[in-house]
Amino acid sequence: MVTISNHKHMMIDHYIKGMLLAHPHLAKVPKKPIIYNREHHSDLIPILSGGGSGHEPAHIGFIGDGMLTAAVYGDLFTPPGSEQILEALRFLNKGKGVFVIIKNFEADIREFSKAIHQARLEGIPVRYIVSHDDISVEPKKNFQMRHRGLAGTILLHKILGQAALQGAGLEELEQIGFRLATEIATIGFATKSASFPNAALPLFDLPEENISFGIGIHGEEGYRTVPFISSEHLAVEIVNKLQIKFHWQENETFILLANNLGTTTELEQGIFLNDLGQLLELEGLDIAYIKNGKYMTSLDMAGISVTLARLKDPIWLDYLKAPTNAFAW
Amino acid sequence: MVTISNHKHMMIDHYIKGMLLAHPHLAKVPKKPIIYNREHHSDLIPILSGGGSGHEPAHIGFIGDGMLTAAVYGDLFTPPGSEQILEALRFLNKGKGVFVIIKNFEADIREFSKAIHQARLEGIPVRYIVSHDDISVEPKKNFQMRHRGLAGTILLHKILGQAALQGAGLEELEQIGFRLATEIATIGFATKSASFPNAALPLFDLPEENISFGIGIHGEEGYRTVPFISSEHLAVEIVNKLQIKFHWQENETFILLANNLGTTTELEQGIFLNDLGQLLELEGLDIAYIKNGKYMTSLDMAGISVTLARLKDPIWLDYLKAPTNAFAW
Repeated sequence: MVTISNHKHMMIDHYIKGMLLAHPHLAKVPKKPIIYNREHHSDLIPILSGGGSGHEPAHIGFIGDGMLTAAVYGDLFTPPGSEQILEALRFLNKGKGVFVIIKNFEADIREFSKAIHQARLEGIPVRYIVSHDDISVEPKKNFQMRHRGLAGTILLHKILGQAALQGAGLEELEQIGFRLATEIATIGFATKSASFPNAALPLFDLPEENISFGIGIHGEEGYRTVPFISSEHLAVEIVNKLQIKFHWQENETFILLANNLGTTTELEQGIFLNDLGQLLELEGLDIAYIKNGKYMTSLDMAGISVTLARLKDPIWLDYLKAPTNAFAW
Repeated sequence: MVTISNHKHMMIDHYIKGMLLAHPHLAKVPKKPIIYNREHHSDLIPILSGGGSGHEPAHIGFIGDGMLTAAVYGDLFTPPGSEQILEALRFLNKGKGVFVIIKNFEADIREFSKAIHQARLEGIPVRYIVSHDDISVEPKKNFQMRHRGLAGTILLHKILGQAALQGAGLEELEQIGFRLATEIATIGFATKSASFPNAALPLFDLPEENISFGIGIHGEEGYRTVPFISSEHLAVEIVNKLQIKFHWQENETFILLANNLGTTTELEQGIFLNDLGQLLELEGLDIAYIKNGKYMTSLDMAGISVTLARLKDPIWLDYLKAPTNAFAW
């Protein structure tokens, strides 16, 4: 299979250049892996996120008014180093500090923590939230929840970004973040594994006509691999796992985000969304808002992740519906 | 490879139901393959488009304020029948008539013509434009341009849709359509062929590590199949073919639309866009606006099509930049 590229080690650079070309509100800090919204108002608290590459359009696609102020990126599936994150914090701080959204992966936490620690020593006020929406389980660790940061992170970007645009301070953002992050849950499935460009083998083994539940976004295998039966069967498993997390009551209000993990067709995603919607309706839930698209991918993996967020505060819905020029929202 | 679905013959129905769920401004005419914008103002000229399915998010994704008023759809790669198109025309006409955008394929022209003829007999004023942006050539027919209707059609949807929203009448829409349609050119390449769900073989043969230039959106093979070298080489071939069509001068102003033909990754599309942008800059063109995304696909084909539109009238740019709630713009 062809991978459209020039030099493998330049893929991320070239992608970023393409996105800067297409989206004039985005700019790059020279010689640093930091992209920012050039229209950001300096009297608002800037919001930083980021992580490894290979998840396009994350995170560059979420930079814009009412979403991220900037993103710092690393190589494929490798977070940026703490020095680069620190540069981003210094660049963004205009005296009021910086709010940071971090995806819960060991390497990400390590690098972001170091950078935040150092920034605080330099007098930069920093608050952060760790996104941990993954509710899939680890069979080898007594079926503990993995709590990785997955596509649910995008809801944090949007809601916190809009709150910041409306003038929320660092502490208020932290409080919204805490309340919100525990109300977001994500679980997905893959119909095809991810592959590194030019790699001989995919990152995990998935037999033909099988699907894997609870996959990660770095080629981590799921908790269960079974033959594909139907879209409806997929939706049943996903809704069951979400129900276990939320113990929802009838008429509770939720936000739904269906995320293309890479190369699933629009047609298939729409079919699955229909099954999902029907099951959630049968559960008696009030789905106040649906986002359906491609938000956080894993290279060429095929599959879909489903995020539900319990609408504890109705203002979150207003924040989600507010317009933004972030190109991937 | 798994295709996420329930019953093969219900794929389109289920997809449409999923989209109606996610996008509350859309509604379906009961028992007819017609989707419309329920917020459309009846004093504006309605715009109808449509065609076969398998090109998702086209055309349902372009229904909204300032774009299409409605779309009529057929089965996979099969246009709707003239009776269904006629129903759509009758449904949309509130006395001022209907404007229709048709993609130039033999079967589409046949069915739409019949319906328009009948509608006019019934006293419904109808004007139309045929989109024929394809500039790829047919080796078996003395290298004549194929002039099929491809992703450039989306620019017609947006510009004519916004003109209608601002009060343009039927005749004015026709005039804009004529001027615009001849200034739009599209050419693309595939890195992987399309397959019908559950079909044993892909729709055309494309050897590993090869690409095909000038492919259609119904599994039609391109004019040339060659081994893949680099993204830059792809861009050179595409820009050469566009130059032959436009004979552009330095500093001429164009609109660029890069379209994911199905399952190309975001990363690859961004890389290709960068090469394309660099070459167009070397040509001295002024690219006033770039749309980069997934607009008109061909099932699971991988590849990208490139559309340029010469900006003969600066108002077209304003129309393109105007906001719309059509979900795929």
